[in-house]
Amino acid sequence: MVEDERPELPKIIAKIYPELPGSIRYGFTGPPGAGKSSLINKLVPKFRARGHRVGVVAVDPTSPFTGGAILGDRIRMVDHQLDPDVFIRSMGTRGSLGGLAQRSRDVAKILEFAGYDLIIYETIGSGQVGSDIAKSSDAVAVVLVPEGGDYVQTMKAGIMEMADIYVVNKSDRDGADYMVRSIMGMVELGEFPMGWRPPIVSTQATSDKGLDELIEKFDEFIAFQKKNGLFEKRRREQLIMEVGDILQDILRREVRDAFESGAFEDAILEKILRNESDPYTAAFELMENKTTL
Amino acid sequence: MVEDERPELPKIIAKIYPELPGSIRYGFTGPPGAGKSSLINKLVPKFRARGHRVGVVAVDPTSPFTGGAILGDRIRMVDHQLDPDVFIRSMGTRGSLGGLAQRSRDVAKILEFAGYDLIIYETIGSGQVGSDIAKSSDAVAVVLVPEGGDYVQTMKAGIMEMADIYVVNKSDRDGADYMVRSIMGMVELGEFPMGWRPPIVSTQATSDKGLDELIEKFDEFIAFQKKNGLFEKRRREQLIMEVGDILQDILRREVRDAFESGAFEDAILEKILRNESDPYTAAFELMENKTTL
Repeated sequence: MVEDERPELPKIIAKIYPELPGSIRYGFTGPPGAGKSSLINKLVPKFRARGHRVGVVAVDPTSPFTGGAILGDRIRMVDHQLDPDVFIRSMGTRGSLGGLAQRSRDVAKILEFAGYDLIIYETIGSGQVGSDIAKSSDAVAVVLVPEGGDYVQTMKAGIMEMADIYVVNKSDRDGADYMVRSIMGMVELGEFPMGWRPPIVSTQATSDKGLDELIEKFDEFIAFQKKNGLFEKRRREQLIMEVGDILQDILRREVRDAFESGAFEDAILEKILRNESDPYTAAFELMENKTTL
Repeated sequence: MVEDERPELPKIIAKIYPELPGSIRYGFTGPPGAGKSSLINKLVPKFRARGHRVGVVAVDPTSPFTGGAILGDRIRMVDHQLDPDVFIRSMGTRGSLGGLAQRSRDVAKILEFAGYDLIIYETIGSGQVGSDIAKSSDAVAVVLVPEGGDYVQTMKAGIMEMADIYVVNKSDRDGADYMVRSIMGMVELGEFPMGWRPPIVSTQATSDKGLDELIEKFDEFIAFQKKNGLFEKRRREQLIMEVGDILQDILRREVRDAFESGAFEDAILEKILRNESDPYTAAFELMENKTTL
């Protein structure tokens, strides 16, 4: 129902919200091929061993039709197919990115309501939607691979902003040390007004290397945030972002409905095409005549 | 003024709109490192030789601070720095992706008004914003490199939808033939209800290879569209998208202003945090009390 954006959704969320048992949320983000799914696949049993029920929300904002790459990813997670305490949900864009971040958060709420107390968001970190989803977490691990130098270069600022923990995965490969040093250099240049300097963990999902250390770093970061009042603060900021996103979703739908009704096209489009109006004037006119929306 | 989203902008656009002399718009999109800038750099003199004045709008939706990668890109275009008939403008996100597509279109309008009759949009094709910008063109070339197999895999559906012409750049490199065949296979499986099957052009920006052929394909596609009434149809669809984006921008700003005034936080946030309200209920309440916005 969430993915279909069914009209009942707000009512359902309103109904379950007072009874949400609470959860902790980890985000895993990074470029395609960084091995996020394999890493999560290996972490899940460790979280299970600590008594968590694990809900994974894997979102691919670059894939309009769920298939291809993401399907391949999911195959790596079949290890947990038979465990009722692990629930994995893949989401694609269904043609439109609008609302994808919010739908992911709603899926997480429903998993939480169903008793999954550890939510893992997995997403490609590029683009607004990916980073919005990652930012819905209590702790974000940015997963990179030794070959990912270009990605770091391109995404630098966005990553710096988002990463609570850096993971250099596939760390047996050539260039892993160089990658670690590059990130170190980046972190050294960064400013961290909160007082948390993102640690770098080298992992290898094929063996078990670094996985316990990664979990430790998650624990440490959560403890650090709670100690400094930052955990609650972050949740507040997320909530503000979320309400804003929902508002924009509502408005987006109003706009879409107005356009689909055809009223806009007939009335104003011709005028713009004859250069007798322009896109801004048209938009403001539509805003003022909110009744036509 | 466009990039700063100054409040006078709508008035300026409204003023210049009736006098826009018209332009043709080509989009170049593809992953970072595909050599889009180098390619455009080499195409510019050819367009100049045909009498065009060329305006390039280069947008990097992944780069919050204009710098790094995009600066490197621009350096490749300095060839035209002294030619007043070539204008190159780089744009980054300035921290927020909201409105970036629209700001790019407005920059293009201003270039058109200044007499640049060939507009080139250059953008990384991933994410909503990149594809929105590419879709603001009369013809989109998707630029790939022999090593870009993963990109094609990940972006498949999005690319298929967007490409009017495929370019395999750096075609002297290993794997170029394989890349061409991969795209061919993809194109063969695709459906093209408009009747245009995207051609594939192999280029090499360092030499001149394929550049004339690429320009020919642009010409052919524009002619094809005009012959079939598709050119005007596409412009119409772009206009609808544009007015929709502006509307959303206006609404986005209303939401932001409301949040920045702090009214939202004090009034409702506490209720949600105590689970006495929820994000949807809060958003709908805010909508109903539009006066508080």
